[in-house]
Amino acid sequence: MNAEIIAVGSELLLGQINNTNARFLSRQLADIGINVFYHTVVGDNPSRLKAAIGIAEERSDLVIFTGGLGPTKDDLTKEAIAEHLGAELVHNEEALRQIELYFERTGRMMTENNRKQAIVLKGSEVLPNDHGMAPGMVYAKGAKTYMLLPGPPKEMEPMFLAYGHPALLARMDSQDKILSRVLRFFGIGEAMLETEIEDLIDSQSNPTIAPLAADGEVTLRLTAKHQSLDAALRLIEEAEEKILSRTGEFFYGYDETSLMNELTKRLKEKGLTIGCAESLTGGMFQQEFTSIPGAGSLLKGGVVCYTNEVKEKVLKVKKETIEKDGVVSKACAAELAENAASLTGADIGISFTGVAGPDELEGKPVGTVYIGIAIKGRPVHVEKLNLGGSRAANRSRSVKYGCHFLMKELEEI
Amino acid sequence: MNAEIIAVGSELLLGQINNTNARFLSRQLADIGINVFYHTVVGDNPSRLKAAIGIAEERSDLVIFTGGLGPTKDDLTKEAIAEHLGAELVHNEEALRQIELYFERTGRMMTENNRKQAIVLKGSEVLPNDHGMAPGMVYAKGAKTYMLLPGPPKEMEPMFLAYGHPALLARMDSQDKILSRVLRFFGIGEAMLETEIEDLIDSQSNPTIAPLAADGEVTLRLTAKHQSLDAALRLIEEAEEKILSRTGEFFYGYDETSLMNELTKRLKEKGLTIGCAESLTGGMFQQEFTSIPGAGSLLKGGVVCYTNEVKEKVLKVKKETIEKDGVVSKACAAELAENAASLTGADIGISFTGVAGPDELEGKPVGTVYIGIAIKGRPVHVEKLNLGGSRAANRSRSVKYGCHFLMKELEEI
Repeated sequence: MNAEIIAVGSELLLGQINNTNARFLSRQLADIGINVFYHTVVGDNPSRLKAAIGIAEERSDLVIFTGGLGPTKDDLTKEAIAEHLGAELVHNEEALRQIELYFERTGRMMTENNRKQAIVLKGSEVLPNDHGMAPGMVYAKGAKTYMLLPGPPKEMEPMFLAYGHPALLARMDSQDKILSRVLRFFGIGEAMLETEIEDLIDSQSNPTIAPLAADGEVTLRLTAKHQSLDAALRLIEEAEEKILSRTGEFFYGYDETSLMNELTKRLKEKGLTIGCAESLTGGMFQQEFTSIPGAGSLLKGGVVCYTNEVKEKVLKVKKETIEKDGVVSKACAAELAENAASLTGADIGISFTGVAGPDELEGKPVGTVYIGIAIKGRPVHVEKLNLGGSRAANRSRSVKYGCHFLMKELEEI
Repeated sequence: MNAEIIAVGSELLLGQINNTNARFLSRQLADIGINVFYHTVVGDNPSRLKAAIGIAEERSDLVIFTGGLGPTKDDLTKEAIAEHLGAELVHNEEALRQIELYFERTGRMMTENNRKQAIVLKGSEVLPNDHGMAPGMVYAKGAKTYMLLPGPPKEMEPMFLAYGHPALLARMDSQDKILSRVLRFFGIGEAMLETEIEDLIDSQSNPTIAPLAADGEVTLRLTAKHQSLDAALRLIEEAEEKILSRTGEFFYGYDETSLMNELTKRLKEKGLTIGCAESLTGGMFQQEFTSIPGAGSLLKGGVVCYTNEVKEKVLKVKKETIEKDGVVSKACAAELAENAASLTGADIGISFTGVAGPDELEGKPVGTVYIGIAIKGRPVHVEKLNLGGSRAANRSRSVKYGCHFLMKELEEI
């Protein structure tokens, strides 16, 4: 099955946003063995959209559309497809009820053009939208399959995962099962990781091993094909064992997880709570921590101590420490971590102090970061980083290292 | 002049990277009045690439290629174009000298396949690569223009700005200048905003008015064309005045800004500092605030008060308030805001307490949020929201509303 992804929206052609939907869907399709041969972006223009559909169905078995399902007049994907395929558009009661519920829940006023979003291609399988209003659709004509998805990634991604993905699997007739697993690493660069396992990457074709670096992490995607799912799983496990025997110290988790997610799992297992003191990270650690549903009960709370005043007054860092060592120091990080734990009544205190940039601080260069970790019953310990990135990268890298160091220490207890 | 951007590279079709080049070029082209009608992504496959060129030159005057100019075997953009157009490929001495210099400078060893990068389409204008090896090209055949640019954004972007942009301007015969401005709105939905100004959108063609909704905000892009830049500016200002006379209360800023960025600007103008108490937002407000370079000096600090214990102990919320009204309440938000200001020594205290989800809290439904604002010398005031989204959306929406309400109140002082 070969696919093409058509993103509809003039905002893409004006360069206002990146076509992240094409990337997301391409990855998902690759995982289930569907080859994506083309991405197309076309504006909110009926005749150019119809021309693009004509070209796509000539060269692809599956055409996935994103965008153009909204309530306004320039949203016309459904209409153009219906016209092109000679399909009828009908009201979908279930979709309309969902939209009405959405407005009830949010207390906003529903306008007439919102009703337009409940119109679907007659005969299509409707994909519910759990995060917005426009439903998705899967429509078949002859040997071709058309999938319509909303444009906002926050709606499109969960809809595809929950409903689009199974709908495609049900339509595929391949005998081979495809299994894929992502191994996630932190604290090692892509080139270094690749050097460590170069011979495996070169000699393996089932599973394939594909490295990818992003946001300071490296992942390896293992993809195995076999008629038996069990056999595919064994192929993956054998390759994984070889890889981890060489690089296991940097491995932290599988598939769609994150350092923060793994950290909260470990804390939960051990029944430990955490309190934070964040200077350069400005709340980023706690924000990411609490973005994980259910993690809230593990976070007692914390202080964003951007000023020396708050460090002294709220977090009780000694005046002498700040005068003698400065706030970007091992001593300050240690006091912040210990006092964050005692102030919030948590089992663990973690602190972040450093120079995010763009300017240096206390004569210390941009990227100097101290992370303090104080676990009840253990001596406080501080790690120093020399990061060389932008302000945003230094902040997010610090948060990741905080998770990494804390997980390493939790392994020991 | 109508354009199409073709990105060549299987890594795009596998979803390993976003096609940021298409976004960058689209913006640049929009600014000089070239309409981009299509983006295409095609893999490193000669026959599919040639087919894509055939389609593009049927429907576009200018075809810009990115990628496929590298030294390896799967880089074949030049070769495919040459074959498709019947053009010759020749060695370019200047480009070869540049490549040799690059290797001298970086002390790396030049390999034979690097020489391949110095091959260009005969008769093309060569665009120097100041940040890498592969030169770019502009090639004309009949009424069609082809531009070839390297794939890595670090090479492509500076090459386009320094050499590609002037090469296009020299080839354009239009006298029209293009001016565009984005108006940003918050607190009003896309459908509602469009209803308010529907007659303007329908009747206006210069400037055009294009709405876009993203992340809970709505923007309108006004784009005017005129031989005189002054006249284009006047056209935009006239349309803007009409739009804002109807929807001005929701307008907050121009072009590439954000609610948080506007808030920090207003605080700086008034010389006011801020302290925070974040419950459901878990540090997100402060994290975004401090992500803006230079804003740190306006944030005294704050507390992430995820537990009742921290609300009482650190932020001194009265036990009676929590027992009587609960933490998701107007009273609690008010105390949190006032005490955040006094604890951190800030002029303004802002607080966020509510139910992010997925579970309800204190019998209050997901999406119930109270935002407290305490400005020195004014009575504290609290706004209540009923958001109906996911956990992540409820948190980020709350932060945006916090900026919005605080800016509204700052207008009064």
